[in-house]
Amino acid sequence: MTALIFHERIGLERRRISPFSWRIRYAFAHKGLTPEVVETRFADVDRIRRLSGQHMVPIIEHDGTVVHDSWSIACHLEDRFPDAPPLFGGGIGRGVTRMANLWADTVLSPALRIQILPDFPGVLMPEDRAYYRSSREAELGMTLEEAASGRDAALPALAALCRPLQLTLSEQPFLSGTAPAYADYIVFSLFQYARIGSPRDMLALMPELPAVLDWRTRMIGLFDGMGDRFGLHPRN
Amino acid sequence: MTALIFHERIGLERRRISPFSWRIRYAFAHKGLTPEVVETRFADVDRIRRLSGQHMVPIIEHDGTVVHDSWSIACHLEDRFPDAPPLFGGGIGRGVTRMANLWADTVLSPALRIQILPDFPGVLMPEDRAYYRSSREAELGMTLEEAASGRDAALPALAALCRPLQLTLSEQPFLSGTAPAYADYIVFSLFQYARIGSPRDMLALMPELPAVLDWRTRMIGLFDGMGDRFGLHPRN
Repeated sequence: MTALIFHERIGLERRRISPFSWRIRYAFAHKGLTPEVVETRFADVDRIRRLSGQHMVPIIEHDGTVVHDSWSIACHLEDRFPDAPPLFGGGIGRGVTRMANLWADTVLSPALRIQILPDFPGVLMPEDRAYYRSSREAELGMTLEEAASGRDAALPALAALCRPLQLTLSEQPFLSGTAPAYADYIVFSLFQYARIGSPRDMLALMPELPAVLDWRTRMIGLFDGMGDRFGLHPRN
Repeated sequence: MTALIFHERIGLERRRISPFSWRIRYAFAHKGLTPEVVETRFADVDRIRRLSGQHMVPIIEHDGTVVHDSWSIACHLEDRFPDAPPLFGGGIGRGVTRMANLWADTVLSPALRIQILPDFPGVLMPEDRAYYRSSREAELGMTLEEAASGRDAALPALAALCRPLQLTLSEQPFLSGTAPAYADYIVFSLFQYARIGSPRDMLALMPELPAVLDWRTRMIGLFDGMGDRFGLHPRN
């Protein structure tokens, strides 16, 4: 029996708050793998650093090999479990999915993040909130509230950059074609992060993306409704 | 012997001026196919409409079947020549390539087009220029020159939206991974359209995209330097 361990970021009441962990959670399910989960808090940074030589989760351990960075983990799972359903479906699929990954993390992610920024501490454990706020505010050079002050005005630009998703999902049920694969898990993980991290429902605020909303519903329902486990933002 | 005919848009002195035709030109070469080329001008719209029921090129005829729209043509070639090198590499690759296609045509293409708009009539046959100008100016609601008046100021935004390409090509030689495939032909076709359509070298104007420049050079060199055939913009 293969030893698989998944170090996954958790927040308030064990909510899953990391988009990078969500895409790996779905990748494990896609491959039919059920790793042992180690719940990881921001305060666990020293343990994570000792294990992996860096401070970010997710991390997996597989038969003693430690892999960090969600893309590297997905590639590891694809290469080491080639007989399980494919995440990429070959070299071309892997290459183009990498492009989708970099688009998602450098274009979509920052635009979604600004939308939920002041709400996000609410899904962290109370003792993690000060660290989150001070580290992010140092990075941003302003308060979370100041950084998000233009979020309503930014909605049209966010909808515009989601338009390729809307067009794709108007033609085919998943970003990866007729069935979900890793490109879907990448993009879904960001909408899921927004959904858990804020009471604002981003897709209700952007009614011009109905195919994305329908797809998100399908994605939430995969693997016995995995996207609905672990709770949403505690509404005020 | 299969009968294959490729109706391809041409401009001044038989320059290939259509990004949609360029991606299909590369797709044919990728598959090792050498269709009969029918050079098509804007003035040939009646012939095109009789043939395909619509007015756009490229169009292919394959054993009597007429296919229009570059994506449909690429899918047709992939499905009907499955033993030739793959453009998509399976269902996942096809799905994610479709997303890349829609991103390229709705995000990258309009941003590149505005950069070269006033120069583009210079690569059309003189007798096509008035049609091009009047139809595009009607669409834009202003002159080509007015529409492009902010093109220098728009360069940082163009470079920003190309950043996922730069990041991807910093990690892997082609958008499709270790070898070029249809996603590369799609994105390349737009840079090639800009390169042929204007004396402005867009990648010289955006030095923050060195990996994209190197990739464009590789793409130009494929298939015996196909990207350098058919001429560039006649410099002033």
